[in-house]
Amino acid sequence: MTVEIKKPFFVFNPKSYLYGEELVKLAKVADQMAAKYPECSVLVTVPFADIAPVKNETENIIVTAQHIDGIKPGRGIGHVLPESVYHAGARAVFLNHAERPMTVADLSKAMKRGKELGIKTIVCADSIDEARAVAIMGADAILCEPTELIGTGQTSDSSYIQQTNQAIKEIDENILVMQAAGISTPEDVYRTIELGADGTGCTSGITNADSPADMLIDMIDALMKAYTERGNQ
Amino acid sequence: MTVEIKKPFFVFNPKSYLYGEELVKLAKVADQMAAKYPECSVLVTVPFADIAPVKNETENIIVTAQHIDGIKPGRGIGHVLPESVYHAGARAVFLNHAERPMTVADLSKAMKRGKELGIKTIVCADSIDEARAVAIMGADAILCEPTELIGTGQTSDSSYIQQTNQAIKEIDENILVMQAAGISTPEDVYRTIELGADGTGCTSGITNADSPADMLIDMIDALMKAYTERGNQ
Amino acid sequence: MTVEIKKPFFVFNPKSYLYGEELVKLAKVADQMAAKYPECSVLVTVPFADIAPVKNETENIIVTAQHIDGIKPGRGIGHVLPESVYHAGARAVFLNHAERPMTVADLSKAMKRGKELGIKTIVCADSIDEARAVAIMGADAILCEPTELIGTGQTSDSSYIQQTNQAIKEIDENILVMQAAGISTPEDVYRTIELGADGTGCTSGITNADSPADMLIDMIDALMKAYTERGNQ
Amino acid sequence: MTVEIKKPFFVFNPKSYLYGEELVKLAKVADQMAAKYPECSVLVTVPFADIAPVKNETENIIVTAQHIDGIKPGRGIGHVLPESVYHAGARAVFLNHAERPMTVADLSKAMKRGKELGIKTIVCADSIDEARAVAIMGADAILCEPTELIGTGQTSDSSYIQQTNQAIKEIDENILVMQAAGISTPEDVYRTIELGADGTGCTSGITNADSPADMLIDMIDALMKAYTERGNQ
Repeated sequence: MTVEIKKPFFVFNPKSYLYGEELVKLAKVADQMAAKYPECSVLVTVPFADIAPVKNETENIIVTAQHIDGIKPGRGIGHVLPESVYHAGARAVFLNHAERPMTVADLSKAMKRGKELGIKTIVCADSIDEARAVAIMGADAILCEPTELIGTGQTSDSSYIQQTNQAIKEIDENILVMQAAGISTPEDVYRTIELGADGTGCTSGITNADSPADMLIDMIDALMKAYTERGNQ
Repeated sequence: MTVEIKKPFFVFNPKSYLYGEELVKLAKVADQMAAKYPECSVLVTVPFADIAPVKNETENIIVTAQHIDGIKPGRGIGHVLPESVYHAGARAVFLNHAERPMTVADLSKAMKRGKELGIKTIVCADSIDEARAVAIMGADAILCEPTELIGTGQTSDSSYIQQTNQAIKEIDENILVMQAAGISTPEDVYRTIELGADGTGCTSGITNADSPADMLIDMIDALMKAYTERGNQ
Repeated sequence: MTVEIKKPFFVFNPKSYLYGEELVKLAKVADQMAAKYPECSVLVTVPFADIAPVKNETENIIVTAQHIDGIKPGRGIGHVLPESVYHAGARAVFLNHAERPMTVADLSKAMKRGKELGIKTIVCADSIDEARAVAIMGADAILCEPTELIGTGQTSDSSYIQQTNQAIKEIDENILVMQAAGISTPEDVYRTIELGADGTGCTSGITNADSPADMLIDMIDALMKAYTERGNQ
Repeated sequence: MTVEIKKPFFVFNPKSYLYGEELVKLAKVADQMAAKYPECSVLVTVPFADIAPVKNETENIIVTAQHIDGIKPGRGIGHVLPESVYHAGARAVFLNHAERPMTVADLSKAMKRGKELGIKTIVCADSIDEARAVAIMGADAILCEPTELIGTGQTSDSSYIQQTNQAIKEIDENILVMQAAGISTPEDVYRTIELGADGTGCTSGITNADSPADMLIDMIDALMKAYTERGNQ
């Protein structure tokens, strides 16, 4: 069963900050928000070994893998078999993040495997050139994150957001554009969606908040508010 | 809770051939064999996303991860967080397999994280020089597999087994020596243990057998028979 | 001083088969052919340490590096500094070969450095998707080589050649298309150019020939013959 | 023709900061110092494409490659063929630097090729565990550089120097120990040799000095002074 990533969407991406019960607890908060706003998609990325436990405790979020390799069942120890993460419950995957860069050939193979199995691909690109390249390769969504801003708390400016939006939609208007550099407050979320992004997301802004659950809730509320106010375009 | 890998030990290593129900089914067969022979250890390697499901259905095997990265909770998307696989149930891990080679520095870091958490490290070495290097770095077990023999159905000869055994035990007699190149029949298992290996294992010899479950049973029976007959040394 | 790669072009790509005097000797043969046919370009790829010696002994060929990294002068030991290979005489470079795959980000950076310095980029792509991606990233030439055919002596069929030609020229008609899978005889060269490739090249078909020099001469003659006969389009 | 690295030794390691004429100029200064002190060895690391030009202009230094791959003549585009750098004049090589880490298997192969050709291997290790591992693999010299200190201008303390010295000499007393973390003044050189290192070296302390040539001269003078004063042990 394939899922669709809707507009707008929010990605709670705790990277390797969380695992086990603490991760399940926040995933359930995200799940309630996804139930509250069925017109948007809420994705939660989790470590590979947490996919099944998180899936078992949630209903509405899109459980998202942090990576897959473009392999088929067979040899390949230590690689991430797409069938295994799909079976455990993942329906989307991040690919080519600056912290886990992929070769052109490996990325192409992993994107093909995602399409075959019904795992949506959110492909990272850290320049406009790269965004155009992964768009033409058929990404379902593109995370436009200038490498130099990751983890700085500094967001992309409106010109960068508009340029990447345009570059990607020119190639295929169905590709979702995610802008997430430096998101650390609900206001950052609001502003990024207001500027035209289809989706956004956050890591340490949530995991390091006084109350991660409240921050997650406020950010998804801000996402919906901005999307509604900009007229759902 | 740390586990010990006992002498002798058998590793059912289905790599990326199996996942989901089919993997759980065979893991349960391995689990019965581990219950039958409490004096040996039976390890089953599984894809990351299958660790929790396999752990939930078994009691006696050592669920084994295919890789971990030497990271701590924090940033690092697409990497394998040791805490996550430990929490899901893994108590051993393969590192530095020829299909997933690691840099010296990354291997060293991953081995340290394994020790900290109680995840036993089975480190692969494809030459005697490499076996000595990973022995001195503190591996719990070393898989001595000349790269050129992987997947060929050709086993290591007795001279290679004796040389690697000696090279490793000279450095630390507590390190377990695993020999598994080309194991495809119970006779191969018998002969390898008879020649002095502490443990052995198999991939496609089991997954491609007419009855994988029967082959797995026969191999573990052969392991115990050889170990008993050689006088448990 | 930038050079242009002309249509048609031939790449003698001895990879790591040759170095030192033997390489200089064949590079001089290529140089004579480049002098004989000033309307085409002859490229010779050489190991990094052979760039200066080959450049010093030739005048007409385009000395070509096997790789560059997208770095600027500064830290970075063991990487290939573009300024260094340019200064030694390289004016073109292969990037992203299946034997030296690059991440999307690293490829993008290396291509930018090539443009800045006047080093023409010949970027490898082993599927049509990848060819389109590297075309949109701004490659000067694209080597379309289905990975599975490398080193097999089997050439790409006419349908593959036409499809990649079309996919690339649709994006930018100025990008040169190189087809070189399995070229081992002058007839292969003739046929590949006849089918519409802008350039072709050869490795072991030359280095393993009874007379590498004669084979090189015959292949470049065949290139020009085919190009002339197809009407220089 | 093999060369020996003598005790003490100094490595001028301009990484990718220098190339072309500027590099040749400083290499000639190093060459004069090597002539002045024939009882020590002076190594200069250079980009691959600068090996031949630097070798041609010098007589006394050991021209040193920044990396080699463990390959033999044959396929392998974009890799560094040991025969090519040897032929161009390199007689030593750095391996496994934190900026160019190698897998255990690749490092082992490259070290073997170095031995076969007469290229001395200076292998980097960023912890004592790693130093012991590369010692047992047969390094000619080991650069002990805690990764966290590279480029900080902070030198290793005497306890770290003594521990690594002891760990390495215990395994093989003929292996040369190089300590170079944070060397930025002649005083740092003096102190490091005084503490018992066999050799040391410098990058930006020289390239960023007001007069790189004078700094290089002063550092090599300091090396010899310390070595003489400690009684040549």
